[in-house]
Amino acid sequence: MGEKRLGACDIGGTSIKMAFLTTEGDIIRKWSIPTDRSEGGLNIVSHIARSFNEELEQDGVTAADVIAVGVGAPGPADPVEGTISGAVNIGWENGYPLKKLLEEALELPVFIENDANCAALGEMWRGAGNGAGDVVCVTLGTGVGGGVVSKGMIITGVNGAAGEIGHITVVPENGFLCNCGKKGCLETVASATGIVNLYKAEGKDAPDARTVFERAAEGDAAAKRVIDRCAFYLGLAIGNIANTLNPAKVVVGGGVSEAGDVLLAPLEQYVRQFTFPRAMDVLSIEKAKLGNDAGVIGAAYLAKVMTV
Amino acid sequence: MGEKRLGACDIGGTSIKMAFLTTEGDIIRKWSIPTDRSEGGLNIVSHIARSFNEELEQDGVTAADVIAVGVGAPGPADPVEGTISGAVNIGWENGYPLKKLLEEALELPVFIENDANCAALGEMWRGAGNGAGDVVCVTLGTGVGGGVVSKGMIITGVNGAAGEIGHITVVPENGFLCNCGKKGCLETVASATGIVNLYKAEGKDAPDARTVFERAAEGDAAAKRVIDRCAFYLGLAIGNIANTLNPAKVVVGGGVSEAGDVLLAPLEQYVRQFTFPRAMDVLSIEKAKLGNDAGVIGAAYLAKVMTV
Repeated sequence: MGEKRLGACDIGGTSIKMAFLTTEGDIIRKWSIPTDRSEGGLNIVSHIARSFNEELEQDGVTAADVIAVGVGAPGPADPVEGTISGAVNIGWENGYPLKKLLEEALELPVFIENDANCAALGEMWRGAGNGAGDVVCVTLGTGVGGGVVSKGMIITGVNGAAGEIGHITVVPENGFLCNCGKKGCLETVASATGIVNLYKAEGKDAPDARTVFERAAEGDAAAKRVIDRCAFYLGLAIGNIANTLNPAKVVVGGGVSEAGDVLLAPLEQYVRQFTFPRAMDVLSIEKAKLGNDAGVIGAAYLAKVMTV
Repeated sequence: MGEKRLGACDIGGTSIKMAFLTTEGDIIRKWSIPTDRSEGGLNIVSHIARSFNEELEQDGVTAADVIAVGVGAPGPADPVEGTISGAVNIGWENGYPLKKLLEEALELPVFIENDANCAALGEMWRGAGNGAGDVVCVTLGTGVGGGVVSKGMIITGVNGAAGEIGHITVVPENGFLCNCGKKGCLETVASATGIVNLYKAEGKDAPDARTVFERAAEGDAAAKRVIDRCAFYLGLAIGNIANTLNPAKVVVGGGVSEAGDVLLAPLEQYVRQFTFPRAMDVLSIEKAKLGNDAGVIGAAYLAKVMTV
């Protein structure tokens, strides 16, 4: 009972994070269910709906107490058509009509967005973005993801490919080959995989990025050069985003950002080196704050602003 | 009489272009007056108002027949406060309250924007952008200017420094020094000045960019390398903008773009090389169409959308 709430889902390859939130973005309840990728992912919608209604019941409320549901999903989203493409991890065919199917199953308005964009909205609203409407998020994980928020809303671009920050070219000549088919993408040098790539190019080997950071801490000169180079490329990409969009904050998250100041201190210097002075005046680099909750908080924000 | 019209000004260092337009963006009448930079540019507003009213009278209409007036001015604009900063060419102090002063003088609603952003809006609305809401404009002149349009509106950023495409860093190491204080900005290698810079770095000398293009046409190998390199850097910047914003069109204008296919053909190849495949699927590179009218047409668009 009481105040109306927002619903949120963050659909991933192994689990679906779900939550109810207040219209201020406070989490009322959160839970997750496994992602059933069998049969081309066709059971996912009904699983979400069943779980959603069970949890509503536990709170003694019904769908009528929910304003709308925001959903983040992997792969480029077409928020107008309500479809998701390229969600190969989940098994959905291109143009899967997620919005329509969930609206039928939940009997509620549903709004969808790419999952990295939802995370960016979450950090903008209740995380490191601190409500600033112009925020760029960069997530350094196995790959590099991103989201661009301008005046409080995601920039989706023409076919949902905006915010592909991991595919900004930072090594235009003789760069490593990227999964996308291009060469020299930010992802090839600033993700966990990229850091190992750079270390290999130094003629050394490490099982993972964490090991490279550990060796740098122990004084390994090659590992130190790799981290400086990673900060250099990341600073170049962020500086050029700032020259284009003039945001208030760039929020850096994901596993690699957990390395902390050893990466973020040189990053700040490089961002300053590559950013137009007037844009630099108002820019700050922040560490992401919401961790795994960013996605559901951003999805709830989407549900909120789309129903205003 | 008849249909209501839009007013538009494009304030430059030597002249102020003015126009009346229909709400569809057709120019009813256009004219220009010299820019009086004496006394810190303090006569400009009254000159605009006098000229504007004289021209209205010639058409047998009054201010009541004007919906609103859009104004482009050099230097970063704060559209909310209605102020212009850094218009050193004109003599205005930082934070010059152009909107307020013009509204008092014209007794009409006035909306202001940076001049390069107005030109981008003009090309988006009635030029090479052809009404596509997601358009990036790059103007290659003495410097390199730009404007970013998303969903039909300019992205201004936090303090009006968005769209500083000329200051995207494309030579992160050992680049030429730029007027902005940074090194390796796009402007240092892709403007008219930049092309001469690159030619000098080849150990050759030319009085202007036009001469470099002429020598390339005559088979000068250094001049050909310079043009290829200019296209490479421009393609890198445009590709990375596309990876960030996923626009439908990138519109290239300004004097240097008049060189035509000798620059634009390699540019297209480099844009393809540096753009994420999904973003490339929907992207086209277009030559600007409106020439010197882009500014007033975009200013009129601004006046139109701000009063809807």
